[in-house]
Amino acid sequence: MSSYEQALEILMQGDRHRVWSLVVTIFGDLAQNQGDEISAQTLGRMTEQMGIKSQALRVALHRLRKDGWIESKRIGRSRSYFLTAFGLQQSALATPRIYGQTSPQSIDWILVTTEATSDNQSDSAAHDDPHSFVRLTAHSYLGKRANLPETQHLLVTGLSDTTLPDWAKNQIVPPELNQSYASLFILLSAAKGALPTKPTAIERAVLRTLLVHSWRRIILRHLDVPEGFYPQDCKAIACRSLVLDLLARLERPALADFIDA
Amino acid sequence: MSSYEQALEILMQGDRHRVWSLVVTIFGDLAQNQGDEISAQTLGRMTEQMGIKSQALRVALHRLRKDGWIESKRIGRSRSYFLTAFGLQQSALATPRIYGQTSPQSIDWILVTTEATSDNQSDSAAHDDPHSFVRLTAHSYLGKRANLPETQHLLVTGLSDTTLPDWAKNQIVPPELNQSYASLFILLSAAKGALPTKPTAIERAVLRTLLVHSWRRIILRHLDVPEGFYPQDCKAIACRSLVLDLLARLERPALADFIDA
Repeated sequence: MSSYEQALEILMQGDRHRVWSLVVTIFGDLAQNQGDEISAQTLGRMTEQMGIKSQALRVALHRLRKDGWIESKRIGRSRSYFLTAFGLQQSALATPRIYGQTSPQSIDWILVTTEATSDNQSDSAAHDDPHSFVRLTAHSYLGKRANLPETQHLLVTGLSDTTLPDWAKNQIVPPELNQSYASLFILLSAAKGALPTKPTAIERAVLRTLLVHSWRRIILRHLDVPEGFYPQDCKAIACRSLVLDLLARLERPALADFIDA
Repeated sequence: MSSYEQALEILMQGDRHRVWSLVVTIFGDLAQNQGDEISAQTLGRMTEQMGIKSQALRVALHRLRKDGWIESKRIGRSRSYFLTAFGLQQSALATPRIYGQTSPQSIDWILVTTEATSDNQSDSAAHDDPHSFVRLTAHSYLGKRANLPETQHLLVTGLSDTTLPDWAKNQIVPPELNQSYASLFILLSAAKGALPTKPTAIERAVLRTLLVHSWRRIILRHLDVPEGFYPQDCKAIACRSLVLDLLARLERPALADFIDA
């Protein structure tokens, strides 16, 4: 078994990846600029290496087109795919989080307490957006000051001088997510040991996709919080270091590389 | 009707005063130092002017003795009363609040958030002490940092840069208490207009007692918070100014003055 196959086997472990979601990761990692296209052939070769049947890829591409994520065009006898404006926007939103090297500063973070007697409909609804605020108690939310709606009904206190107790940290990164980080850390450490020294363009693309995919499936499930807000034993920051390290070793191939391949 | 009688009538309005509680106020205002005594005769004359029957005074003195607030001793044919160590301590605790001219600074104030999933027994119990913390929501309390119990289970955020929303201010000074301040403000304003120019020692003692009593019955029912934490229309600070102004005009009589009287 080659070093590449070993790394591939390791990164294929863990949770089953849904095909359409993997394809989104492929486009997000390789073709996130306006005008970028990936040929049907390249997509087929990449997903084949991930053990995905061509029929499953067709279904995924059909779904992504129906949902407005991608479009396709025919060039001679072949077809190529590219992200729509919506797809580009969605990818751009996730990119800083996925590839970012640092966590936000605690100075910008706040605790928002809503009215005790409120019916939890009006005031609270604004904070139930999991991309902006995480609920700590029935009437308390944690988030960034910039995402605070303009209202005088909220009690807002700063978190920059605050040490979060364990139960609050566990609301931000719940135990099951913490466990996912622990598993990912083991997987990434193993992948690091198996990494091929001179991977081809397609090999780099495949390994990067699996790497980014495992990573984004966890981090996008909780707020991007300051490092001090993670549970004490959480491997999130350690995972980020490993992911960035591995991505650096697997240089992103230019799309042109695949045409030759 | 003399100016004194008018002022007396005004200050006797409002809620009915319980006799034993009034007697506590008398001692707290006039005899709060170790060794201070008030004769039965003086107590009788003061309370008589407040419309209290001698039998009611006897019952009150009996109760206060039984509860450990006061003691008495016989001097020749007369009897005099004085605060016990416990009574002195209780009075001393309330004194800074009753006669204080300023509110605490917001820098020392915190919001305490308790665990969402806690059973509200262990963590919260510590904050249900109304002298230290006021409950804002099911899991949030407001109080001074100095009163925080030593535990790592609490989420503590500072309130010095915080503008409290109305609902939080109304938890600190509930509407009914706010109404009491409004009523007291009217009563104090009226009393100020009717104040005698040269009251006797006993007149000063009686008016001071009624004044302090009306005041402490309200302020001791909520936390001594920074001025910015009161509801916007609250007359608490205005009442304090009036109380202190009136007390300054009614110089505290020395206990010796009554012996001559």
